[in-house]
Amino acid sequence: MEKLYFASDYMEGAHPAVLDALVKSNYVSTPGYGEDDFCLRAKEKILAACECPEGEVHFLVGGTQTNSTIIDALLTSYQGVISPVGGHIAAHEAGAVELFGHKVITLPAENGKITASQIDAYCTDYNNDGNREHLVMPKMAYISQPTEYGTIYSLKELKEISEVCRKNDIYLFVDGARLAYALAAPENDVTLPDLAKYCDVFYIGGTKCGALFGEAVVIPKKGLIPHFFTIIKQHGALLAKGRLLGVQYDALFTDGLYEKLGAPAMKAAEEICACLKRLGYVMPYPTPTNQIFFAIDNDKLPSLAEKVVYAFVEKYDETRTLIRFATAWSSTDEKTKALIKVLEG
Amino acid sequence: MEKLYFASDYMEGAHPAVLDALVKSNYVSTPGYGEDDFCLRAKEKILAACECPEGEVHFLVGGTQTNSTIIDALLTSYQGVISPVGGHIAAHEAGAVELFGHKVITLPAENGKITASQIDAYCTDYNNDGNREHLVMPKMAYISQPTEYGTIYSLKELKEISEVCRKNDIYLFVDGARLAYALAAPENDVTLPDLAKYCDVFYIGGTKCGALFGEAVVIPKKGLIPHFFTIIKQHGALLAKGRLLGVQYDALFTDGLYEKLGAPAMKAAEEICACLKRLGYVMPYPTPTNQIFFAIDNDKLPSLAEKVVYAFVEKYDETRTLIRFATAWSSTDEKTKALIKVLEG
Amino acid sequence: MEKLYFASDYMEGAHPAVLDALVKSNYVSTPGYGEDDFCLRAKEKILAACECPEGEVHFLVGGTQTNSTIIDALLTSYQGVISPVGGHIAAHEAGAVELFGHKVITLPAENGKITASQIDAYCTDYNNDGNREHLVMPKMAYISQPTEYGTIYSLKELKEISEVCRKNDIYLFVDGARLAYALAAPENDVTLPDLAKYCDVFYIGGTKCGALFGEAVVIPKKGLIPHFFTIIKQHGALLAKGRLLGVQYDALFTDGLYEKLGAPAMKAAEEICACLKRLGYVMPYPTPTNQIFFAIDNDKLPSLAEKVVYAFVEKYDETRTLIRFATAWSSTDEKTKALIKVLEG
Amino acid sequence: MEKLYFASDYMEGAHPAVLDALVKSNYVSTPGYGEDDFCLRAKEKILAACECPEGEVHFLVGGTQTNSTIIDALLTSYQGVISPVGGHIAAHEAGAVELFGHKVITLPAENGKITASQIDAYCTDYNNDGNREHLVMPKMAYISQPTEYGTIYSLKELKEISEVCRKNDIYLFVDGARLAYALAAPENDVTLPDLAKYCDVFYIGGTKCGALFGEAVVIPKKGLIPHFFTIIKQHGALLAKGRLLGVQYDALFTDGLYEKLGAPAMKAAEEICACLKRLGYVMPYPTPTNQIFFAIDNDKLPSLAEKVVYAFVEKYDETRTLIRFATAWSSTDEKTKALIKVLEG
Repeated sequence: MEKLYFASDYMEGAHPAVLDALVKSNYVSTPGYGEDDFCLRAKEKILAACECPEGEVHFLVGGTQTNSTIIDALLTSYQGVISPVGGHIAAHEAGAVELFGHKVITLPAENGKITASQIDAYCTDYNNDGNREHLVMPKMAYISQPTEYGTIYSLKELKEISEVCRKNDIYLFVDGARLAYALAAPENDVTLPDLAKYCDVFYIGGTKCGALFGEAVVIPKKGLIPHFFTIIKQHGALLAKGRLLGVQYDALFTDGLYEKLGAPAMKAAEEICACLKRLGYVMPYPTPTNQIFFAIDNDKLPSLAEKVVYAFVEKYDETRTLIRFATAWSSTDEKTKALIKVLEG
Repeated sequence: MEKLYFASDYMEGAHPAVLDALVKSNYVSTPGYGEDDFCLRAKEKILAACECPEGEVHFLVGGTQTNSTIIDALLTSYQGVISPVGGHIAAHEAGAVELFGHKVITLPAENGKITASQIDAYCTDYNNDGNREHLVMPKMAYISQPTEYGTIYSLKELKEISEVCRKNDIYLFVDGARLAYALAAPENDVTLPDLAKYCDVFYIGGTKCGALFGEAVVIPKKGLIPHFFTIIKQHGALLAKGRLLGVQYDALFTDGLYEKLGAPAMKAAEEICACLKRLGYVMPYPTPTNQIFFAIDNDKLPSLAEKVVYAFVEKYDETRTLIRFATAWSSTDEKTKALIKVLEG
Repeated sequence: MEKLYFASDYMEGAHPAVLDALVKSNYVSTPGYGEDDFCLRAKEKILAACECPEGEVHFLVGGTQTNSTIIDALLTSYQGVISPVGGHIAAHEAGAVELFGHKVITLPAENGKITASQIDAYCTDYNNDGNREHLVMPKMAYISQPTEYGTIYSLKELKEISEVCRKNDIYLFVDGARLAYALAAPENDVTLPDLAKYCDVFYIGGTKCGALFGEAVVIPKKGLIPHFFTIIKQHGALLAKGRLLGVQYDALFTDGLYEKLGAPAMKAAEEICACLKRLGYVMPYPTPTNQIFFAIDNDKLPSLAEKVVYAFVEKYDETRTLIRFATAWSSTDEKTKALIKVLEG
Repeated sequence: MEKLYFASDYMEGAHPAVLDALVKSNYVSTPGYGEDDFCLRAKEKILAACECPEGEVHFLVGGTQTNSTIIDALLTSYQGVISPVGGHIAAHEAGAVELFGHKVITLPAENGKITASQIDAYCTDYNNDGNREHLVMPKMAYISQPTEYGTIYSLKELKEISEVCRKNDIYLFVDGARLAYALAAPENDVTLPDLAKYCDVFYIGGTKCGALFGEAVVIPKKGLIPHFFTIIKQHGALLAKGRLLGVQYDALFTDGLYEKLGAPAMKAAEEICACLKRLGYVMPYPTPTNQIFFAIDNDKLPSLAEKVVYAFVEKYDETRTLIRFATAWSSTDEKTKALIKVLEG
């Protein structure tokens, strides 16, 4: 029997609509570096979906690359970025932000989230510190929607964070590597236009959300980053055949596909959660999106691993391990049932 | 009438065999980050083609990224890389090598090439300089095969360069972004096994040679760069769905496709060159590969631009401009004929 | 009345013996960059004092510069340095370590100190993490002797830390910016030879310990950092008139001056602590060296500030502020008495 | 007999007036980091001498450090600095500018100088290049006064360079590491107020001009570099006992000392040049300042080296070597005569 892949949301290729668009456009000749009509059209669709027609869109290839490029583009050498302690840039990027010279300032997080008042307190302390000219200046807040723990910020929380960022004159940057799964979450109330309204920059993840690869960076206020094209090039993040990103995002933003893409993941997650709850597993984080964290007895892991590919998170206690299942746009009832059968033993 | 695209060799999507492989594998589940069977298989095929089964292969996404990542991986802070003055890292990467802290030491080039004796002289001067501890230490030589001017190094030249690099204890790094076109050139005598034998690191270009994207880095001596995976990750060059690179290179290295891929480009280039010669155009660089440089009267450019997409190179003299045509794996007789018709007016 | 300076230990110029040596040598001609006899002699004396005649000494100008240069010299791009959360590199250097691309990995500290078992646990977790190739690799532990809180590591603690560093193959780097005050502390049992025995690199602070400026980096195992001279130059840390450092350290290491230098600071600190205790002030950190931290009512600060220059540390609680007094090699009974008089109101 | 030191202009300590000021102020207590009255007074005097009372002055420690810190402070990642090919930042700083991520764009130089029209042509070519977004953007011109070859820019040349820099919206930065010797040169017509009028930033060298160390950076337009203090700190260039710089520059700018300081160097250089000319030596660069370059037979070098410390420059031809003598503020008739005697054999 083939293994069931639930380790992450990038285990398969592209959504059929995306693949189809790539195949159809394959022999068309276009200019390189994203200066083609596919990109132009995709950008217009994205800006329309975000209700900020005056904004800018740039396409990059992957998440870590997008994070470090944006952060380096907006911060000067002595400025740092505030992040939840488990934020992707703080914990999982091998020091990509530091490579470009910037400190990641970590704040304690609850379920992967930080609050407006934490950010405000940090900035206030900095501003009140008589030695602040010897310190790293906080100049950006970085959050993920959904977070690395599958949780989401509510609109109220996002607005509050946006307000303290503007009050303290720091940028708000939202990492949307898994944004489709936040948008598809029943309890979510943060829309694309909300993100455009409350952030200085955010991105709409493609790699984990139905594309082969790609992240669409939205800058609601045009011109925020002068010469961003050159910055992308210098940071090794410019795709020569840039139209591949345009073709994919064009497909993702046709007929509202992106907003619907996460639905199968939600359905699968809900059923898996219900099963885990039924079986009495501890799930330390609430799971409104497609990531499911639960503690499992160490001695059950080998037999699980024979049938299911999951992600190791950390030691939970002496006898248990915290692991993660991720559902995806590609989740099917069949696969979900097979997983539940495995879990039920 | 649609325009004829001759501006570069990345104007279309993927070679049919590559596209086909991507489509076929689209719904297969695999681990991420290149730890999948497609990548494993592709690496084995590449090492076999290079006749260095003990080597290592790593897949990155694009050329500038590959150059700056490799250079930063091999050099320490005070070490620089020797490059021809028109080398891609010196001239066209927006300072990507410097971004990671390294100086590009440029040597005068002839038709885009530098010689063994130039490299040797530079290293000797450095070693004899009593103030050398105040200087950037040369620690790598960077050349491109074919060069940015379409020329190629002969096996004799490559061997000589390799020898002086080893004598001076510096790395030899060959940028093969367009390697398929060197391999397909009738006058070429440098094979993949030669590159593996004489270089410390080189890459086999995919982006310009039939893949959607991708560069396959070959390190003939395993272990040369410890933790290169982490370095790739930190430099934003790690593809989450790494298997996409494996799938493409698997196709490119099946049945010797990569070595044959450039043939249509060679045929087209030959015919276009013959036409240009016939029409009396000045072609400053010899064109053994797929890039054709020629000087054209400024007043002829607007009408050419209406029908053909070409690349501007530089002002040639008061009345003429140097421009470039690039043929590709996707060149067809039909397109070539159409271009010749345009040129003949 | 002139103010009493107790804000830090670099409020005056040089120790009389150091100043005298600078004056005496002023018109002597020597080569630059530390290649002179003064430096040679000073290095020999330092290595003798450290009982590691086979080691190396390098002179740099200031503390932040020395920290970031050493760290960048020893770590490669994806490697980070473990530091107590309040360590100078983590908290007071405006991001100097990150500027050169390295992450500072902070561990919770008690009185400014971290333990061997904390370091071991961090390394063990890293080594056991299946995703460690996506993480910053810990490759150095940084501690200060004395710490930024005036506390000191015992020989037993230093040995334990050294052992776990060697076990985990990471460097141990000791910041000795205030080392003279640790050496002079009655409870101290860590000698210069101990530091040479248990560290990979450490420095003997001059700026805060009687020199005009200067930090003497000791590398017990010669050759640990190839081309360190060039690295110092590139990092902007090479003094043209390098002999100034040699002259000063020659004086500091003549007749055991450096080890005795802190005595006046210890005497003054003891008397001030006794007074503060008598007056009932809260002193959150033990003070074996020359830094005295205590909480003072906010409403007492303005009148104190009229007479004494102190260092603000942080808000202690709603009504009190934590401040610091630092005594120094230049402390005198007269100044101490004057301060005590002010405190006693 | 003791050797005659003519290798450089930093072979001795400080000018008597500077040394005296350091000795006198040694036991005064002041705040650190340049926030003291000595610095305040020195800054005022410098701005008065530059006739730009509204400007800013910052003190750093050495030349390479000052160059790389200023360049990194003013340029963003993809911007480069134009320099003569033999400029100090291009040739003698071990890659310090690249360490912080910036490309040094070299232009061919005559006697160490570049012209306004060269700078203008480079910027114009950049602006006209259709691919300029793939290139390093020129954003600063760096020149030295005097140059590394001892030559000087005339006021007319400086004005022209300033005009093209403003026209092309790039900064003009003048490295004045040896400025005292330009100011003292009989043929010089560029004053401190001229530098303040025509540059965006320049510095008044101390290390080579009578101070123990130190470079005074003048920013005529206040606020050009926000948070420059923090940048200096982060780059390891902030002196803890900052007042040492203030004390020295206060002395150097009392009674016009700095402008007179170079006189003994000029006198000595004139006499040595006359002697060399008389003896028929080839002197490839004109010597209006304190550096004298001449070609000497290789077989004469060993006996010269027994008596004189000189600087090796480069191989001149098969039988001769180019070497340099530098005179200084500390030159004396006695030493000059002794050198002439040696030369006359």
